[in-house]
Amino acid sequence: METLQVALDERSYPILIGPDLLTDGTILRAHIQAAQLLVVSNEVVAPLFLDRLTGRFTDRHVATVILPDGEAHKSLESFSQVMDTLVSARFHRDCCVVALGGGVVGDLAGFAAACYQRGVDYVQIPTTLLAQVDSSVGGKTAVNHPRGKNLIGAFYQPRCVLADTNTLKTLPPRELSAGLAEVIKYGLILDGEFFCWLEDHIAALRELEPHALRTAIRRSCELKALIVAEDEREAGRRALLNLGHTFGHAIEAATGYGEWLHGEAVGAGLLLAAKFAARSGTLSDADVARIESVLKAAALPTSIDGLAAEQLLDLMALDKKTRRGELRLITLTGIGAGSIVNNPPRHRLMEVLKDCGAV
Amino acid sequence: METLQVALDERSYPILIGPDLLTDGTILRAHIQAAQLLVVSNEVVAPLFLDRLTGRFTDRHVATVILPDGEAHKSLESFSQVMDTLVSARFHRDCCVVALGGGVVGDLAGFAAACYQRGVDYVQIPTTLLAQVDSSVGGKTAVNHPRGKNLIGAFYQPRCVLADTNTLKTLPPRELSAGLAEVIKYGLILDGEFFCWLEDHIAALRELEPHALRTAIRRSCELKALIVAEDEREAGRRALLNLGHTFGHAIEAATGYGEWLHGEAVGAGLLLAAKFAARSGTLSDADVARIESVLKAAALPTSIDGLAAEQLLDLMALDKKTRRGELRLITLTGIGAGSIVNNPPRHRLMEVLKDCGAV
Repeated sequence: METLQVALDERSYPILIGPDLLTDGTILRAHIQAAQLLVVSNEVVAPLFLDRLTGRFTDRHVATVILPDGEAHKSLESFSQVMDTLVSARFHRDCCVVALGGGVVGDLAGFAAACYQRGVDYVQIPTTLLAQVDSSVGGKTAVNHPRGKNLIGAFYQPRCVLADTNTLKTLPPRELSAGLAEVIKYGLILDGEFFCWLEDHIAALRELEPHALRTAIRRSCELKALIVAEDEREAGRRALLNLGHTFGHAIEAATGYGEWLHGEAVGAGLLLAAKFAARSGTLSDADVARIESVLKAAALPTSIDGLAAEQLLDLMALDKKTRRGELRLITLTGIGAGSIVNNPPRHRLMEVLKDCGAV
Repeated sequence: METLQVALDERSYPILIGPDLLTDGTILRAHIQAAQLLVVSNEVVAPLFLDRLTGRFTDRHVATVILPDGEAHKSLESFSQVMDTLVSARFHRDCCVVALGGGVVGDLAGFAAACYQRGVDYVQIPTTLLAQVDSSVGGKTAVNHPRGKNLIGAFYQPRCVLADTNTLKTLPPRELSAGLAEVIKYGLILDGEFFCWLEDHIAALRELEPHALRTAIRRSCELKALIVAEDEREAGRRALLNLGHTFGHAIEAATGYGEWLHGEAVGAGLLLAAKFAARSGTLSDADVARIESVLKAAALPTSIDGLAAEQLLDLMALDKKTRRGELRLITLTGIGAGSIVNNPPRHRLMEVLKDCGAV
């Protein structure tokens, strides 16, 4: 097991990474001490892990909210349901909300913890690779509005994160790959050496080799923590974390959400950003080839065959990362060196979309 | 006009206090600079002041949410309505939510500002005395749950507070008195000299004498800011602000909310707390008489004739200020000196309830 300490917003919390955390009663009880626990999970994850978790807390008052699976349930209605459960169970300010699941569960449970009685403790047990490397750090919690993702939320830090790498054994391979897209992203924007390590270990990661998983998750969380500590409220450098995301969001929107996983769209977005950098003269073609090769090794899509380039461009202009109508794109000035471009030329965006198969 | 600077939670904001702030375009425009404004108000306040406010911002994109009057509308449903309006108007992260009204409007609008896109600017224009002396400082925002008040919320500071004392001219006298209960409370827990000043100026305050109002509002905000700065998250000394409130909440609950105004119940609660202190030997009978006399001069109730003492005691035990089943009561060790008592003896609480007319 590894422990990474994250220091943000006046408080510091540990991320524990390793196999079998969910079966280790000593660790669980050391990190979840409240007398009243609300576990938020979903219908896919709960049958796999809920009993294992609650079985360690038979001496506590445990309530549960089990949501249907999917992004559609990251809603104000689900938030209201969590509040109803907390109130009905008469939970106090010293209760703890535990998120057992992926990003949807974590974002919703974290926002509920931020708001119940103006803030109660919150522990994350992320069960997807994406949640382990992304939601573990940064304190972003939210629900979706019918007209936009993550529009209602709070910055709120957990008390601790328990990333049990064994939970990834039940993760569908596509979702594992989607998580790897974010891992690759951290290497690309911040750490060329980590990117090299990934080139050598993508196969081991896909085979869930425990040591490789631990290293990848730990380094991803460390890199994210570094950048978030500099810029907790997303005014400047935190924007680098959006590498691949402006393209990715447009792909998700153009395909109606659900056809592409978020991480898959980000994966294709990473290649598009690399090609944009190459066409702008800040990245070599050899580096673009390395990036494409890692994405393929991670079983991520590298083509957006058949998508409409004009539509993608329009969707990119609507992305919430635009400021006062100005599009901000994250690009690369090398492997391990992300940078921000304001108002990237439309013709160049068009070229890279077409390079990757858009029509 | 007076300006008080409040420094809390990494950011500092001004409270402007004086007549005619709402008609002073220069002041309004200096303190509300966003290009997109959402004004939240209610059906009683909006006809009086909304045009005056929005007339100064004809060059901005202004949206409004006008709620029905009353505590019942401080709900998750109203919160959702504010979110819908912000999203429909396509407001960005650099928009500003303006609360124009009393505590209900302020609490709701503040919580909405805290959550929209994880936090946008928020300006308070409190139009009741209670909101001017209470909600202006402390950053508590919330909505009610059907089963409990203020159960869903956030700590969130405004960018500024504009307390226009002229708005009090349209306030019903009962609501003015209700606000005075909180003003008297600040004197009682923290500042004996201010309490003496209040003994001399209650009549002037009830007649809305501008200089007296300014002094009372300013000193109340200063005293609240002092104590909140020490204890922003309500772990210790901030509890002193609950003087009269444990009794008051029980009175409100016993009478079904709405019959007594919150401030009226707090007024009676102040006398009950003083009588508790006298029976505990920490306050003289002469001081109790002074307190009763100020409350009467403020036209606040000093009797709870006919309420059931047993029921009130049960309701006090349920109050959210109890910790792990332990009741915490705020009492006095003198005028200007609040203190905390854990587990006050039930028989003594019973005695003071009966002293004030409970049966």
